[in-house]
Amino acid sequence: MGGVVQRSPRFSELNDDDVRYFQEILGKKNVIQDDDKLSAANIDWMHKYKGASKLILQPCNTDQVSQILKYCNSRCLAVVPQGGNTGLVGGSVPVFDEVIVSLSSMNNIISFDKVSGILVCEAGCILENIMSFLDNEGFIMPLDLGAKGSCQIGGNVSTNAGGLRLVRYGSLHGSVLGVEAVLANGTVLDMLKTLRKDNTGYGLKHLFIGSEGSLGIVTKVSILTPPKLSSVNVAFLACKDYSCCQKLLQEAKRKLGEILSAFEFLDSQSMNLVTNHLEGARNPFPTSLHNFYVLIETTGSDESSDKQKLEAFLLGSMENELVSDGVLAQDISQASTFWRLREGISEALMKAGAVYKYDLSIPVENLYNLVEEMRSRLGDAANVIGYGHLGDSNLHLNVSVPRYDNKILSQIEPFVYEWTSKHRGSISAEHGVGLMKANEIFYSQSRETVRIVVYY
Amino acid sequence: MGGVVQRSPRFSELNDDDVRYFQEILGKKNVIQDDDKLSAANIDWMHKYKGASKLILQPCNTDQVSQILKYCNSRCLAVVPQGGNTGLVGGSVPVFDEVIVSLSSMNNIISFDKVSGILVCEAGCILENIMSFLDNEGFIMPLDLGAKGSCQIGGNVSTNAGGLRLVRYGSLHGSVLGVEAVLANGTVLDMLKTLRKDNTGYGLKHLFIGSEGSLGIVTKVSILTPPKLSSVNVAFLACKDYSCCQKLLQEAKRKLGEILSAFEFLDSQSMNLVTNHLEGARNPFPTSLHNFYVLIETTGSDESSDKQKLEAFLLGSMENELVSDGVLAQDISQASTFWRLREGISEALMKAGAVYKYDLSIPVENLYNLVEEMRSRLGDAANVIGYGHLGDSNLHLNVSVPRYDNKILSQIEPFVYEWTSKHRGSISAEHGVGLMKANEIFYSQSRETVRIVVYY
Repeated sequence: MGGVVQRSPRFSELNDDDVRYFQEILGKKNVIQDDDKLSAANIDWMHKYKGASKLILQPCNTDQVSQILKYCNSRCLAVVPQGGNTGLVGGSVPVFDEVIVSLSSMNNIISFDKVSGILVCEAGCILENIMSFLDNEGFIMPLDLGAKGSCQIGGNVSTNAGGLRLVRYGSLHGSVLGVEAVLANGTVLDMLKTLRKDNTGYGLKHLFIGSEGSLGIVTKVSILTPPKLSSVNVAFLACKDYSCCQKLLQEAKRKLGEILSAFEFLDSQSMNLVTNHLEGARNPFPTSLHNFYVLIETTGSDESSDKQKLEAFLLGSMENELVSDGVLAQDISQASTFWRLREGISEALMKAGAVYKYDLSIPVENLYNLVEEMRSRLGDAANVIGYGHLGDSNLHLNVSVPRYDNKILSQIEPFVYEWTSKHRGSISAEHGVGLMKANEIFYSQSRETVRIVVYY
Repeated sequence: MGGVVQRSPRFSELNDDDVRYFQEILGKKNVIQDDDKLSAANIDWMHKYKGASKLILQPCNTDQVSQILKYCNSRCLAVVPQGGNTGLVGGSVPVFDEVIVSLSSMNNIISFDKVSGILVCEAGCILENIMSFLDNEGFIMPLDLGAKGSCQIGGNVSTNAGGLRLVRYGSLHGSVLGVEAVLANGTVLDMLKTLRKDNTGYGLKHLFIGSEGSLGIVTKVSILTPPKLSSVNVAFLACKDYSCCQKLLQEAKRKLGEILSAFEFLDSQSMNLVTNHLEGARNPFPTSLHNFYVLIETTGSDESSDKQKLEAFLLGSMENELVSDGVLAQDISQASTFWRLREGISEALMKAGAVYKYDLSIPVENLYNLVEEMRSRLGDAANVIGYGHLGDSNLHLNVSVPRYDNKILSQIEPFVYEWTSKHRGSISAEHGVGLMKANEIFYSQSRETVRIVVYY
């Protein structure tokens, strides 16, 4: 992948004096040259992107991050910040021999205010650890991800991670109240507010949310966390066409309103794939053929009234013929089997062969058209499946093929990007740009908005 | 106020050729030199800030805004954008003779997607008109303001307006999905996305939210609107001390969770002021003296279960002794009388004499300490009252005096700013900086964050 990018001769090469300097400011144990650790940090978790860094630095506090960056800046040493290294677009590993600045040792929770629900912590805190901490306090994180066991909050913020709770709690631009970041020249920007309201000056912190480390390294974060609610319910529904899915979403927003916490969809091709490839995965409606399936989750504070509400919604949707069939999970175990049908698609795709994956955001009314156009474009050569977070207009378009084939790829790209661009969509809904899509940014951003960043 | 600022000689003075040029591109009727209209546009609604502009321009589309700014830039003519002119900090009127660019004629709703709830409209749409439009569609705006009958959405976005629904729906950084803005040189930045998720490139639109027109003129907005819910309930409660108010907020977030839509507080001094000065305002608990009062509003989709939930919450809070007394509004009329006690404070203050007003955001645990310190600092010379949006940590600190008195003012300022700064608060929670607080910004922003904006 990185092959098209050339290492700039402007950057120096690391030498022994550099290493000695880092040892002085960080202590020897935080300046890592061990081969095993280096090879783990040089490669991303998909084994798709690989760098050749010779040095990992593990600062313990913001001041050390500042000293590192100030020195690297003066020496023209290239740097890549690294959190949990769970990114999907080649943004968390070196492209060449950049010095890796790992935030892993900065993993302290600094404060938590039980009245406001505001948490302040260091960037290296692992998402799941924060979740456990909050669980004890009776709160939850406004974001949840498959990678939660490894990913770090600094990386989540730097990549504007989306995830499973966005339909309910919104994006990190709403939840993140403050950020501390260190610029390339070592300047520490203290924007670590713990306030829901602050209208003094520019919203600079927002530039660090989703800029993938390119503007500076996020070192601390303050975040608004919602209280934990006790009642969770899951329903699995079948719809005859995409139009019914859309109308159902509209109804769910109105009728379930404040308790809706997930609205996911999959097409029949996705359902077939999962039930064919995953052991124990069963279609809840085995006797009939449906074109689409919807998973609805509600989260609220009152078990009996929430369940009543969901049952009434189900009944109404069947009467209106928006839903052809439906079932409400009777316990946690049944709820998990429903979630497994949706969450198992990725795994089933891997078992089915090779796969071209696209993570797109497209206005809901047009979202599924792309799947159908791709299907008729590729014919029998591929199995095109569509699923995703319909509540967020986020389509996961996947093209499953027996093996990778450049002829098929050339029928998919750039068509998929052009189509998305034409419909004012985003070619990266939640994964970011990284190295993978750096050259495709104009499909989702106007020339002027990119130019202004480069010029100013 | 503007007295300390000097007009820069860099700026040209308007001449007849300029006016002719504007008439050519906008048509004569949109180039306004009428004295009455000019004097209305030159003064803010509090009659506190007054400019001396000789020209109002009323563009009808983005292209005209672009042409205006490009020309003014080349001629070095200063410009001030104006929406509904309802700002409180002198940001919406000229300081000197700036050309006023009024967005009032750009008031079209461009599109509304009933499935996603995403609205796209021009900047000059009046907030209340958008609300009426959405009401017909079964949706609401995520923000509501006292000034809704005049304020325009472009101004709301440019000032990051807070308002009454923030505790439920969050800030505009979460709700605003896209912005179109014109830079000073006429460049049109198309960031008008209609997507909940987009991780391609920097979050530039966020810089235009709350930058008060200083980076460009917002011409179009896309915004995520929540569905309208049918059931609204209001409770009015009495607490013996501030600690109980805090604990009650914590409980309300947990027990009312997803239906909580307002959590407002006032102290007994505020209650006395309102009941003494506003006709018909009555303390719901006239026989006992309470130190604090809390107004709680819930909004949900199920009348009976919502009411049950609120009743159970009230009962539990009384048993826990968080609440000394409480009453649930039995109808809309009683709900309005409760809201009147909270919303009438401003009016009562005007009737009581002169008033020094501060709009502060302070972490909840320390918020009321400032009121008490101010009270002991000023002694009998003033009536210090505290109230506000406790759910958002937003304190309205008001010092009521018989008449303005510089000796008293010198005891309030800079103390109030220093205290707020020391507690990591914001000296402007929702009103912005404008001309009023331009010199006080360092109380809420670090030198580095301000410097980086000036240097880059």
